[in-house]
Amino acid sequence: MHDSSIGVLAPLARVSGRNGLDPLAERLTDLRSWLATDLAGVDQALATDGDSGDLAARAASYLLARPGKRIRPLCVVIAARLGGRPADPTVRNLAAACELVHAATLLHDDVIDQGDERRGVPAARVVYGNSASILAGDHLLVEALRRVRRTGITGLLDGMLDVIAGMVQAEARQLEQRGRFEPIRQAYEAVVQGKTAALFRWGLRAGGTAAGLGEDALSALDDVGLHFGMAFQLVDDVLDLDGDPAETGKSTLTDLREGKLTWPLILASERDDALLADLKAGIESGEPPRGMVERICATGALAATRSKAADHAGAARLRLEALPPSQARRALAAVVEATAARTR
Amino acid sequence: MHDSSIGVLAPLARVSGRNGLDPLAERLTDLRSWLATDLAGVDQALATDGDSGDLAARAASYLLARPGKRIRPLCVVIAARLGGRPADPTVRNLAAACELVHAATLLHDDVIDQGDERRGVPAARVVYGNSASILAGDHLLVEALRRVRRTGITGLLDGMLDVIAGMVQAEARQLEQRGRFEPIRQAYEAVVQGKTAALFRWGLRAGGTAAGLGEDALSALDDVGLHFGMAFQLVDDVLDLDGDPAETGKSTLTDLREGKLTWPLILASERDDALLADLKAGIESGEPPRGMVERICATGALAATRSKAADHAGAARLRLEALPPSQARRALAAVVEATAARTR
Repeated sequence: MHDSSIGVLAPLARVSGRNGLDPLAERLTDLRSWLATDLAGVDQALATDGDSGDLAARAASYLLARPGKRIRPLCVVIAARLGGRPADPTVRNLAAACELVHAATLLHDDVIDQGDERRGVPAARVVYGNSASILAGDHLLVEALRRVRRTGITGLLDGMLDVIAGMVQAEARQLEQRGRFEPIRQAYEAVVQGKTAALFRWGLRAGGTAAGLGEDALSALDDVGLHFGMAFQLVDDVLDLDGDPAETGKSTLTDLREGKLTWPLILASERDDALLADLKAGIESGEPPRGMVERICATGALAATRSKAADHAGAARLRLEALPPSQARRALAAVVEATAARTR
Repeated sequence: MHDSSIGVLAPLARVSGRNGLDPLAERLTDLRSWLATDLAGVDQALATDGDSGDLAARAASYLLARPGKRIRPLCVVIAARLGGRPADPTVRNLAAACELVHAATLLHDDVIDQGDERRGVPAARVVYGNSASILAGDHLLVEALRRVRRTGITGLLDGMLDVIAGMVQAEARQLEQRGRFEPIRQAYEAVVQGKTAALFRWGLRAGGTAAGLGEDALSALDDVGLHFGMAFQLVDDVLDLDGDPAETGKSTLTDLREGKLTWPLILASERDDALLADLKAGIESGEPPRGMVERICATGALAATRSKAADHAGAARLRLEALPPSQARRALAAVVEATAARTR
């Protein structure tokens, strides 16, 4: 099992420091030591999976053992702290469930997208095969639901089933839209809400519910989760175009090659009329989209996407003010801010 | 939506009549009219799915709209009748959940096995693609769990999660064993219990629980389900070798070509030393296993497998006697008997 310090906090702190955001870097470093035990507990909860030793479990642990950002379980842990609850077994199960659902969708998505790399190493489907990757995803979905169930907290299981149903629907829509290159802003937002933001929202609500927060606070956390998830995905879109594969652990330009309509691409196509037609022709002729990144950059779409991410992060932090000030609230605000500014 | 008479009862009645089992044929025809409303209700419950219209839902309805045997929902419906409960919305949801889980595994298995045909038509993965088939399976899993959840009956959801986990594990084991041709009897039984029998057992327990049966009766139904599922799978194994594709709706010899170790193959390899080595060499050289069916038949393995199926059916009916005699008990006994004797 990897050291939990490999999670999102250490790199966010480093990056924030590098970008001249020293106070933020400091807050994140504090946060890291404050939550060290909580996060180690979540990692432990994740590590116990995969013991049964069959192919599906092994392919699943292969992915889980890689250092991921663990940003979803972090949401659960901080939201529980907002209500004063440490990461006891209940909170750990909820946090682990969040990461397990995410990992399950990665395993299925890699087969669907024929992705070759994930978290800096060959994707599970490459090592264990597509079939094992499908079964590993099924295995983790069931394991996640069992963990939520085990907590016995009313409503969380129904919410999680809704989230998974929405993720599947969003992925199906994205699959249908792929290669069509119809730059529809609403379609993008619906997909990101279903695929990414809904799980962030569930994680914050789950942690908050476990800690006994009232409905007003939970409803604020719902909004925080949606904005946070949106900001996270927008930055992911940018990093697909200008990220450093050595840092992000993913190959770049995969969205572009697969004909996924990311936000920078939607913006760029609104500003450069021939862009989508040229991209489509390039992909259909099997040519890599050469010079395409420079062309997208030239429209200012990357900067505009980062700015939109920052807006969502700002909206999330604003909504956080519905909660009483606390170390946990500051922590969540810092994570949101750093996520929108991240370069990996 | 198809007519529910296309389910398992009509063909079982026809086949039983053709095989000279006239009293059985008559009982099944009676059963069909007795349960007509119940089964139509289940079909209705299944038809409401797939309305959301995205690719995953469409690929799922494509499979669900095909006439399947509906033998798992039949278990739920009859078990509910054992306790005097008709197929009201709760029972329908449980019955539909059983079929949905089954359909979900078919959708994933077709991708894993690269199956081309299912229920007499091209598999969903052929029509909608592997990706849609994976998402459709995910969609149905969630939908099944939601339906069980909706009934609010304690214990059934945990049981269903255990069943799905076991199905995934069994499928993973089968995937690992594929092509190795190690004729291990225990490995076969563990896989069939996980992949097939556990869902039959859940269906009977779910129906019985909904109808308020006591723990003694439920425990008897557990055993009935395991034996019934075993008998069902053993006959399926036989039909892969000597079934008529026009009747079974599946291409034959797929198990053999994929290197799946079915029961007839295990028996045959115990009686014909060189059989597995020859089969393996044939598959590896890409040659269809010509003359292999005749060779397996010559060992008497098909007849012995049918006889083992009949033994499990007999054990199931014996265990049924723990329940008071009723129309429903006779119905279940008839379905078990006819299933073990089926030729499609």
